Amino acid sequence: MKRGFGSDNHSGVSPEVLEALAKANSDHALAYGDDEYTQRLEGLFKETFGEQARVYLVFNGTGANVLCIDAMCRSHEAVVCAETAHINVDECGAPQRVVGCRLLTVETPDGKLTPELVKSRLHGFGFEHHSQPKAISISQPTELGTLYTKEEIKALADLAHSYKMYLHVDGARLANAAVALGCSFREMTTDLGVDALSFGGTKNGLLMGESCVLLNPNLDVDMKYRRKQMTQLASKMRFMAAQMICYLESGIWRRNAEHSNRMAQLLRSEVEKVEGVKIMYPVQVNSLFAQLPREVWHRLQERYFFYDWDEDADVVRWMCSFDTTEEDIYDFIHALRDEIHKVKS
Amino acid sequence: MKRGFGSDNHSGVSPEVLEALAKANSDHALAYGDDEYTQRLEGLFKETFGEQARVYLVFNGTGANVLCIDAMCRSHEAVVCAETAHINVDECGAPQRVVGCRLLTVETPDGKLTPELVKSRLHGFGFEHHSQPKAISISQPTELGTLYTKEEIKALADLAHSYKMYLHVDGARLANAAVALGCSFREMTTDLGVDALSFGGTKNGLLMGESCVLLNPNLDVDMKYRRKQMTQLASKMRFMAAQMICYLESGIWRRNAEHSNRMAQLLRSEVEKVEGVKIMYPVQVNSLFAQLPREVWHRLQERYFFYDWDEDADVVRWMCSFDTTEEDIYDFIHALRDEIHKVKS
Amino acid sequence: MKRGFGSDNHSGVSPEVLEALAKANSDHALAYGDDEYTQRLEGLFKETFGEQARVYLVFNGTGANVLCIDAMCRSHEAVVCAETAHINVDECGAPQRVVGCRLLTVETPDGKLTPELVKSRLHGFGFEHHSQPKAISISQPTELGTLYTKEEIKALADLAHSYKMYLHVDGARLANAAVALGCSFREMTTDLGVDALSFGGTKNGLLMGESCVLLNPNLDVDMKYRRKQMTQLASKMRFMAAQMICYLESGIWRRNAEHSNRMAQLLRSEVEKVEGVKIMYPVQVNSLFAQLPREVWHRLQERYFFYDWDEDADVVRWMCSFDTTEEDIYDFIHALRDEIHKVKS
Amino acid sequence: MKRGFGSDNHSGVSPEVLEALAKANSDHALAYGDDEYTQRLEGLFKETFGEQARVYLVFNGTGANVLCIDAMCRSHEAVVCAETAHINVDECGAPQRVVGCRLLTVETPDGKLTPELVKSRLHGFGFEHHSQPKAISISQPTELGTLYTKEEIKALADLAHSYKMYLHVDGARLANAAVALGCSFREMTTDLGVDALSFGGTKNGLLMGESCVLLNPNLDVDMKYRRKQMTQLASKMRFMAAQMICYLESGIWRRNAEHSNRMAQLLRSEVEKVEGVKIMYPVQVNSLFAQLPREVWHRLQERYFFYDWDEDADVVRWMCSFDTTEEDIYDFIHALRDEIHKVKS
Repeated sequence: MKRGFGSDNHSGVSPEVLEALAKANSDHALAYGDDEYTQRLEGLFKETFGEQARVYLVFNGTGANVLCIDAMCRSHEAVVCAETAHINVDECGAPQRVVGCRLLTVETPDGKLTPELVKSRLHGFGFEHHSQPKAISISQPTELGTLYTKEEIKALADLAHSYKMYLHVDGARLANAAVALGCSFREMTTDLGVDALSFGGTKNGLLMGESCVLLNPNLDVDMKYRRKQMTQLASKMRFMAAQMICYLESGIWRRNAEHSNRMAQLLRSEVEKVEGVKIMYPVQVNSLFAQLPREVWHRLQERYFFYDWDEDADVVRWMCSFDTTEEDIYDFIHALRDEIHKVKS
Repeated sequence: MKRGFGSDNHSGVSPEVLEALAKANSDHALAYGDDEYTQRLEGLFKETFGEQARVYLVFNGTGANVLCIDAMCRSHEAVVCAETAHINVDECGAPQRVVGCRLLTVETPDGKLTPELVKSRLHGFGFEHHSQPKAISISQPTELGTLYTKEEIKALADLAHSYKMYLHVDGARLANAAVALGCSFREMTTDLGVDALSFGGTKNGLLMGESCVLLNPNLDVDMKYRRKQMTQLASKMRFMAAQMICYLESGIWRRNAEHSNRMAQLLRSEVEKVEGVKIMYPVQVNSLFAQLPREVWHRLQERYFFYDWDEDADVVRWMCSFDTTEEDIYDFIHALRDEIHKVKS
Repeated sequence: MKRGFGSDNHSGVSPEVLEALAKANSDHALAYGDDEYTQRLEGLFKETFGEQARVYLVFNGTGANVLCIDAMCRSHEAVVCAETAHINVDECGAPQRVVGCRLLTVETPDGKLTPELVKSRLHGFGFEHHSQPKAISISQPTELGTLYTKEEIKALADLAHSYKMYLHVDGARLANAAVALGCSFREMTTDLGVDALSFGGTKNGLLMGESCVLLNPNLDVDMKYRRKQMTQLASKMRFMAAQMICYLESGIWRRNAEHSNRMAQLLRSEVEKVEGVKIMYPVQVNSLFAQLPREVWHRLQERYFFYDWDEDADVVRWMCSFDTTEEDIYDFIHALRDEIHKVKS
Repeated sequence: MKRGFGSDNHSGVSPEVLEALAKANSDHALAYGDDEYTQRLEGLFKETFGEQARVYLVFNGTGANVLCIDAMCRSHEAVVCAETAHINVDECGAPQRVVGCRLLTVETPDGKLTPELVKSRLHGFGFEHHSQPKAISISQPTELGTLYTKEEIKALADLAHSYKMYLHVDGARLANAAVALGCSFREMTTDLGVDALSFGGTKNGLLMGESCVLLNPNLDVDMKYRRKQMTQLASKMRFMAAQMICYLESGIWRRNAEHSNRMAQLLRSEVEKVEGVKIMYPVQVNSLFAQLPREVWHRLQERYFFYDWDEDADVVRWMCSFDTTEEDIYDFIHALRDEIHKVKS
């Protein structure tokens, strides 16, 4: 398949990851996480996120998000999130089916919750007819490629805690946020009061590796049973742990994220030069949302795979990856100009 | 960790599998199964199981079993299975939580259902107070290492169909059954009327690769949504498909299963020579259940990891793997004799 | 407790209903709906809603709504409804827990969906990451006391069917709508293409009696098991059936609804005379939403129980019932004027 | 319908109950349990079961059982119960669907669990592949009409607590047990260490009235939300509370239960005189299980409705009710003898 800007999970795997898999492939290892790799990983997460961090490896982002929600909420409780949040839009109702809870969604201009927006959903406490708000969930970066500042995250954590609620961060692309903000994972989460984190690597060069990270130790209750019962317990877990160890130790998390962010900036600067294309949100990590004439993006989709984002508004998403090259971008811009030209004439 | 007889998922990965992963790691590929590898795999499953076969890759055996059950049953319906079935004992209640249905369990002498045993649970049709029996689920091989003959599977399929029920096979180790019975996968499933199959590779040399295979096309309804909603949809699916293609095409399914079965026979013949150890069930695939004095197996567990199977009855499980060597077995027998000797004296 | 305007379920029971209960209390009757009363009721619903109507008695409105949703949707499907819908706001997440599906909510000016508003949620068909829209649910009358015209309902039914979706009506107060619109139950539902209906009586003079009515026979699948499994099967169902028979045959549905609607009109005309109180929506059935100074409604709540509706906007709800008297209204208006006066001075 | 021995819920309602309903039917009352009747009932349950008792009224026995289980168990936990338990056999899988947990069933000779039988299911603690045993559930009286002594209940409570588990009693017919054992409700529950109780009245003369009673205050967490979300919250709760108050205060619980028990003894003594009919279990409350020739019970079922209990074993159930008369019994015995005679000749 032609390389393009469809998604950062259209790319393959960083070579270091395959090496790590090969290295882990010797001798026997206990299954289901009782192996040395997983134990080492647990230590590594404590180093990374602080002593209280508890990590539960899972297969995918859906698993990480649902396990985090399950740790925070009972079925009669609710999670406040942006209308655009992945847990709301892109899990096919997994939180509803597996946890049985409600999501209280808020429309946002840029994918970001604010204390004020969240407060609009904080009603009905103690009233048994209403699902009880118990968690706030944000994505860092958001599904729209925007970023929360540390202060903004802290404000949401403080708000959550003042209501005895929890703050969850969907960090499927947390590395991209960290390099963009120039801070460590911990500075963006634990230090701000984040309670639970979906920490991913698959979109940034791993083969498969996501995790539910509990930063609030009160949440660490019966987690191993929950993970198993929701079908997310891997048998040969050493191979998932080995990837994640490689991710953190070799520094590919940083290298890959820096690269894809930089490519997105290049893409942005080139797109800005093209007349008739409007960039919708600040380009802060590795994605760009563009508005352009329908006929153009329809034609362009015949040459490149990418997603419509908002069909009604003619907005599409272009996403850079750890293996995007400058050449990829120039070729794409060329094709874009070409189609605009054809449509115009 | 010392090599031993704990489980066939304590072993690593066949080298061909790592090669297949490396080979699949080029260019971009659509995510979530729209890639060429997954499409090729779909064709391969049709070749293997017949034209009507539909395969849905999932992460693990729990996912495969729960997805199969979800395809067959609504929450008010029930699955008849052996008391010892993995879906009953070893999924931490995943079918109950995710599908919401009941399992109607039957005690068996050897892990195998018979039409007569199943019939003891076929009551209350049309009576709304009772969960309605809708599927029979067997494991081939069983959790006790025993095998159904083709005739026995056919009889259960016929029984199921005469009640408008389905037959499901948990084939986490189907390769071991196939080589033991000397028949193809298809001869053991499709040709006998099996409706749904959990087909696994992880216990036989893959890194991670299980699947829900529907052989009855009537069951193929909304499957992609079900898989997604129960958290079992992989993004970079090409890497799971590539493993499974390698499994089927390179013949490692056969080579590995033949080896582990043969090692189990060697283990059996050596154990038979040891006084004081009783083999509990026919050794038909790669596992052996032994009864021996408690003190002996407790001491032996300090040298080798293996599972108690029935603590009250002093029965333990020893399992061979694709990488078990003759030397492993002789060393283990040596240690076993050693501990028996020490306990006696 | 002082009579007031808190809710139409603060009232007791029409005397005819107690008589019907007493009359049904003779001899034995089969339990769980196999009794003569329930069978007679089934015929009565066919007379009322058309030959294809199938009625399932349940305990309460939550049960009726959840059973209707369960008949229409699988867990990976979704129901489009108004943000203010009872199924969204006031069931404490019962649809999510029991059915496992998503609700796709739309903000509305007056509690009413329109085809245009619904269409804004009809996206992602065939895309497995998104819950698949499968039903539209409206309340008639709405939670804001507004009414759909027959044409408006038909337009929504047509829209639903054009997408192979279903239209559900939450008719907890359907009698109030019927008398307000001057049409029969059937003209407002079956004849317009409504597929499933929650038909209630408890808010209009019954002791306890709600029902799930399927008007589209394709939905009538395994309903008795679903009702039982979601805990909504009554043993001595004759006493629920007898109430509902009384409701339909004695005409109390009409008498009570006409009365409460008329009282709401009286309340409206009196409130309109009071300066400083704003009526928020057209008063079309038996409820009235008023905006008035916070201090006034806080003080008034010390004399009368009624619900805040939107605390931030200073909107409260006043509801008339089948036993509301003109005197009740004049007393209440007197108290209202009194408090306004006190606050002013 | 002809009066018979089908079930104690085929009878109607004690006249006192209808009077109580009529008396409760005056003035307005807050809905959803905030009324004076429900508050009075709460005090009455404290008097009856001890100060720590918390009562949650629900619609039916399924609701009471599922709410009790939900209070005790998470979805990854399990309830040990008899194979014949109502929660296992007769709820159409409601615990599985609503709570998502497993039931660990044990075969019993007479419907009664013993510590020894329970222990056979207490395995796998801490092992994430196994549902974690968290509660023992017994029925008093059992589904087979047998009774636990107080000592037997205490032994099970002690066993439960020694494993940090809970003891639940399904007391749908607890009144029949109390009068048979000559003890108070409290002596049979709270005083023995019972943690949660499904306390019913519908089978003993109420119109509709069941309850979840928590005797262990640690279980009283978020109960009002759970009840609402599982669809079991009544709006006009005063009418359910009024029935239950009447049940406890007027003494009909005792009068009705004494009567139906006495009728069962009469039935037993008459059946014992009939040749060819075998009584299967001790007749301790109001039901009798009889084995008799298939042709006889088939013919008898044409004259009287009653349930087959075990078709394969030719066992049927005959149940007495609060309104069973001596004449009913003699007529029935006459018909029984008649059919036996016809079949013989």
